Amino acid sequence: MTVSAVIYGVGAMGGEVASLLIERGVPVVGAIARSPQKVGRDLGDVIGLGRDTGVIVSDDADTVLQESGADIAILTTNSYLADHAPFIERCVRAGLNVITIAEEALHPWRTSPGEAARLDALAREHGVSIYGGGHEDAFWIGLGAQLAGAAHRVDSIRWESTWNPEAAGPELMSSLGIGDPASGESVSVVWRENDPRPPFGLPALDALAEHLGLPDAPRTVTTEQIAAAQPLRSSALGREIAVGEVVGVRDIIRRDPLTEDEPLLEFTVTGRLNPDQHSSGETWEIEGIPSMRMQTSFSKGHFQVTAQIANRLEDVVAARPGWVRHSRMPAIGYPSA
Amino acid sequence: MTVSAVIYGVGAMGGEVASLLIERGVPVVGAIARSPQKVGRDLGDVIGLGRDTGVIVSDDADTVLQESGADIAILTTNSYLADHAPFIERCVRAGLNVITIAEEALHPWRTSPGEAARLDALAREHGVSIYGGGHEDAFWIGLGAQLAGAAHRVDSIRWESTWNPEAAGPELMSSLGIGDPASGESVSVVWRENDPRPPFGLPALDALAEHLGLPDAPRTVTTEQIAAAQPLRSSALGREIAVGEVVGVRDIIRRDPLTEDEPLLEFTVTGRLNPDQHSSGETWEIEGIPSMRMQTSFSKGHFQVTAQIANRLEDVVAARPGWVRHSRMPAIGYPSA
Repeated sequence: MTVSAVIYGVGAMGGEVASLLIERGVPVVGAIARSPQKVGRDLGDVIGLGRDTGVIVSDDADTVLQESGADIAILTTNSYLADHAPFIERCVRAGLNVITIAEEALHPWRTSPGEAARLDALAREHGVSIYGGGHEDAFWIGLGAQLAGAAHRVDSIRWESTWNPEAAGPELMSSLGIGDPASGESVSVVWRENDPRPPFGLPALDALAEHLGLPDAPRTVTTEQIAAAQPLRSSALGREIAVGEVVGVRDIIRRDPLTEDEPLLEFTVTGRLNPDQHSSGETWEIEGIPSMRMQTSFSKGHFQVTAQIANRLEDVVAARPGWVRHSRMPAIGYPSA
Repeated sequence: MTVSAVIYGVGAMGGEVASLLIERGVPVVGAIARSPQKVGRDLGDVIGLGRDTGVIVSDDADTVLQESGADIAILTTNSYLADHAPFIERCVRAGLNVITIAEEALHPWRTSPGEAARLDALAREHGVSIYGGGHEDAFWIGLGAQLAGAAHRVDSIRWESTWNPEAAGPELMSSLGIGDPASGESVSVVWRENDPRPPFGLPALDALAEHLGLPDAPRTVTTEQIAAAQPLRSSALGREIAVGEVVGVRDIIRRDPLTEDEPLLEFTVTGRLNPDQHSSGETWEIEGIPSMRMQTSFSKGHFQVTAQIANRLEDVVAARPGWVRHSRMPAIGYPSA
């Protein structure tokens, strides 16, 4: 099966996905962006491909979606459903399948249940699929779900994803409070439905719970600052972070068992400056029969994000119409030669 | 779906699978063994369950298979197709699906192509499935195939499984030459079809090659002894292994690329005495875009083998008739509550 794609959002991620697809010979038949610096230019020029593609970046999304004849739209615009539900809707109404890197789209059923149900119904009506993919597909959910499949009994699954905010630039770093004086506070809340900005780890934990067949249960989100224990140079901030200032933040998402047969799930997402360490990664710890550990890491860059979008296109197009749950997808795989 | 099972082979592995299934409430409706010490006794007694099950261990395989009404037979008798093809055939002819822990059964298409094709056709004729599972399902194939799914380009996959022969007892240890004077030899052969005793890593490498859509290619098997660099006490042998004596053996299975677009695959299976290290495990190294690493380990025992049999029963029963390839199965998962 050869699928053709529209790139919806030509930023760092959308541009890289486009490059990977073009390198593989997958037809990229449209590109949508808002920035006046990009609109009207050839996609190859905008993404630094070194040659023209014949696709002109456009800000007229409806026209591109309706006239491109593409099978799937690749959305790389936002993280939360509250922000990009209208973009998904536009693709679906134009008859395109959708894959998005939005973290919440991994499993929006509990954080934005109304919007998820509405878009799910709309996708069924139009005979297309919606799927949230990217880094989380294998590294936050799939590999752990498979590891749990080697256990007779699972008592707890604790996993942690560590990333380096230095690479994300000063804007995101200051929004995280990095460089501010640490307050020493640790804030725990039980997450409420429809709060519009769920922490990125929450939909992933919900998706893993569904893999395990667990019913809906309350999840507690604890947010902590990590204070520098020794001075640390930040190249993105262009200064040294002093002892007692914030060098990282940590979200701990926890689902306590409802019965003694259920496992505890606890997912920690830690963004922490560590200029010496260029690779990020995940650790998994399963307590049970047997107990198991898994550690994953990857080289610098975002290729593990963009490749997991590129490698999912056929699965999304082939899936049953509707918003596709991670547990209903095959494990992501390297495309066959 | 509730499946019912016959245990075919009531040794250490078969007994543990039976215990796990009984603990979960999965009906075990028959048990087949040859040993006069087991035949005629209640299965619960033989496997140390502490209570009777009502199932009497029998050496009359055909009668058990034909009269049990089971959905699936769990074969834990042998490693090679050459030895247990008749057992598989007997189950298939009685109308039972089959899952076996035989290492070769993971992917017998290249090591025993004739027998694999014959049994595949027989299973289709009888409307049942045959599947090779166990430790290798996630740890030698599935997790690595999923990890590769996070890559845009894979140049090489090198993975290694390390196990401790100490736990397997003195008989297996001496068959491996452990404790003998090391010869220092390293023997490389290109594996030939129908050689009856393929190294355990070979079918796993073949299965991963199929996940990646690679065509058949020659595989080289290199066998090396590992000599003790310092004295090492073996409790199973009841003596100290001296410097220069064999403490381990290593099989390196390698598939070189046929074209520059194909990755190199190299799987090393290392059995090495290490009395201080009770957990075994796997390491994966993928070179490509991005490069990635993964490490897995599990606690002492064989539960990661037996649990992966127990967790696959429904998948095997639900699969299309025939000998089911790993790449056609969903990633193994923890059974839903």
